[in-house]
Amino acid sequence: MSEVYNKAQLAKSVTGQLAKRSTAQKNEALLAMADALVRQAEDIIAANAEDLLRGKELGTSSSLLDRLALNEARIEGIAEGLRQIAALPDPVGDTLEQFERPNGLSIVKKRVPIGLIGIIYEARPNVTVDAAGLCLKTGNAVVLRGGSAALSSNRKIIEVLHQAMEQTALPKEALQLVEDPDRASVDEMLKMNGVLDVIIPRGGSSLIQNVVMNATVPVIETGAGICHTYIDETARPDMAGAIALNAKVQRPSVCNSMETMIVHRAYAEAHLAELAEQFRSRNVELRGCERTLHYIPWAVKATAEDYATEYNDYILNVKIVNDLDEAIDHITTYGTKHSECIVTETPEHAERFLEEVDAAAVYHNASTRFTDGFEFGFGAEIGISTQKLHARGPMGLPALTSTKYVIIGSGQIRN
Amino acid sequence: MSEVYNKAQLAKSVTGQLAKRSTAQKNEALLAMADALVRQAEDIIAANAEDLLRGKELGTSSSLLDRLALNEARIEGIAEGLRQIAALPDPVGDTLEQFERPNGLSIVKKRVPIGLIGIIYEARPNVTVDAAGLCLKTGNAVVLRGGSAALSSNRKIIEVLHQAMEQTALPKEALQLVEDPDRASVDEMLKMNGVLDVIIPRGGSSLIQNVVMNATVPVIETGAGICHTYIDETARPDMAGAIALNAKVQRPSVCNSMETMIVHRAYAEAHLAELAEQFRSRNVELRGCERTLHYIPWAVKATAEDYATEYNDYILNVKIVNDLDEAIDHITTYGTKHSECIVTETPEHAERFLEEVDAAAVYHNASTRFTDGFEFGFGAEIGISTQKLHARGPMGLPALTSTKYVIIGSGQIRN
Repeated sequence: MSEVYNKAQLAKSVTGQLAKRSTAQKNEALLAMADALVRQAEDIIAANAEDLLRGKELGTSSSLLDRLALNEARIEGIAEGLRQIAALPDPVGDTLEQFERPNGLSIVKKRVPIGLIGIIYEARPNVTVDAAGLCLKTGNAVVLRGGSAALSSNRKIIEVLHQAMEQTALPKEALQLVEDPDRASVDEMLKMNGVLDVIIPRGGSSLIQNVVMNATVPVIETGAGICHTYIDETARPDMAGAIALNAKVQRPSVCNSMETMIVHRAYAEAHLAELAEQFRSRNVELRGCERTLHYIPWAVKATAEDYATEYNDYILNVKIVNDLDEAIDHITTYGTKHSECIVTETPEHAERFLEEVDAAAVYHNASTRFTDGFEFGFGAEIGISTQKLHARGPMGLPALTSTKYVIIGSGQIRN
Repeated sequence: MSEVYNKAQLAKSVTGQLAKRSTAQKNEALLAMADALVRQAEDIIAANAEDLLRGKELGTSSSLLDRLALNEARIEGIAEGLRQIAALPDPVGDTLEQFERPNGLSIVKKRVPIGLIGIIYEARPNVTVDAAGLCLKTGNAVVLRGGSAALSSNRKIIEVLHQAMEQTALPKEALQLVEDPDRASVDEMLKMNGVLDVIIPRGGSSLIQNVVMNATVPVIETGAGICHTYIDETARPDMAGAIALNAKVQRPSVCNSMETMIVHRAYAEAHLAELAEQFRSRNVELRGCERTLHYIPWAVKATAEDYATEYNDYILNVKIVNDLDEAIDHITTYGTKHSECIVTETPEHAERFLEEVDAAAVYHNASTRFTDGFEFGFGAEIGISTQKLHARGPMGLPALTSTKYVIIGSGQIRN
């Protein structure tokens, strides 16, 4: 049997035991794990150095090396993340519905752990700890398959976490790391129906698409964001400019940042040239439709492919429209149903936009950058779901739970 | 382009329009559809006769022909189902959560339609109407792909429903029937990511497994049920016998019926022989473990394969255990996480069973046959989910919805 199969079965074997652990027991384990990471930071940094050296030899880009790199401050931050997860309310055991039937059956719908979760991610050791913490807090076992470029770091981290778990009520078998660097181990995970209850991919769009297109196990799709901000005719220029700039430049590399700014023609006539200068001063390259070029001669002509691209970079498409309908049509055509914003002082337009635009999060007069578990007040986030089943938008701890109907009778049989 | 692609795109093109329809408009359409079915029953029965004739020529079994057959009473029943769906509360637009953030952002989580749903099912014309009604009530467009043996019936039914819809506010494009009898049309549906938001298979296990193992579109898995009833040492014999018999024989062909009865050794010693006679008088074949044969000499020896089989028939496995742990272990090994029951007068045993058995529905002292949308009071049912994501157990109308975060700001940007 393969490594991934054996480890998944081992994790599966303790799901029942794990589901019975109390909130206090789970929190105690998370805190012990956090302390162990800090205490053994030196060992982890040494293991990380091996990954970094290998990465440099292979010519890995400096931005990828940066995501891979650990130091004391980063490890303290990762440990602090575990402590924050420990401090969050535990959704497991919550009663969601409770009703009695005319025949006297009492029915309760309760939150329960999902069971065994697979996480497939890139060479980011912080995700190893974060995913482990979120899954264990919700009573789930987890099989982690991180990018092989972080293997030495991940091995050491898991070793440290396992040692810490041994002193607690949580079975260490609940936390498994797949070490096989071969892509075949990912392919095998994707087909482990009946063993893995769900797979959550975390990473770039090629990683996510590989999981979505090849998994037979249920998947929670996260990530892709081609987000728009529509500046309507009546938008207040100060507000519209601040929101659009924030949505683009506050952190361009993330999924909830803006890729295309849609502007009403009257607003464009009055304000687009000035707004464009603000983007230029932030080093944002603008790509525009024919009409845009009239106001921003230095902009590049945008293609249909541009409108369909998630740049995650200092590049912005600009599209001028005649009315709200045209704006909504553009979003329907090119959006990825992640986060969409209208800036307007016309309440009827806001209402129509919020109603008609189909996305996980729709905004009136606020930056799309707020689509985030922490900003929503969930205290943690396993990702932002861009699918419509199970969870949509920022996913807090409840997204890592399932439900169960508990029915108490007194001998009822069906007629 | 293929038929299925064109029809799915057509349905997709009206999802926005459909999502805006009021509850009253949707209900009016459902009632008009119900009336049209009854009014044109004669035409539908004539089309159905073509299917039945073809089926007989092909040597289709009488039970399959019975599921395919329509008559006036059945069409009236199908129409009545639509009227009942119209009478149910509409979940779309419901506010699920509402909170304000310290920065003044107001966040509302609302129920919205999923969008475009694909239903793949067998040669049962009643499912055509039922699925159409449930999807339209929840503001979803739907692509139906029924068994080709019911094609004439389905074509006529859709024609009747389309005519009825033309007099209402619902776009008839929202309801599409794939007529291509080739399996390739199913395969194509399974991969229509970005067009279909979800596929729900309804039918036998081979149909469901084909969908689960080949779809890249998200799936809601329904159906398979290897359900157990555990009769504990302290069970009251009258209650235990009534529940076990009901779970097996009230309707053996459905997923929530019992396939294996687990009996505590002390209960077996005192009552199994008598209970076995009750099953025998109902023509139930018993297959038992070694110890069972001691009490029921006429029973057949059960194999591991028997314990893993969903008979949906007048066959029952019997397994004698030493204690609750052994009972739970057996269920964990062979159960499909559908519906599981304990009959006991020992509260601690009931509590442990309800807690530790991982299933969509766990029962204390009631028949597993109650796992059903109507019996739970949901008024309708699109199926019984046996997966852990999105929906678990009987799925009422809310299972056909997604959610959307609506965020109202006053110029907030992220720091």
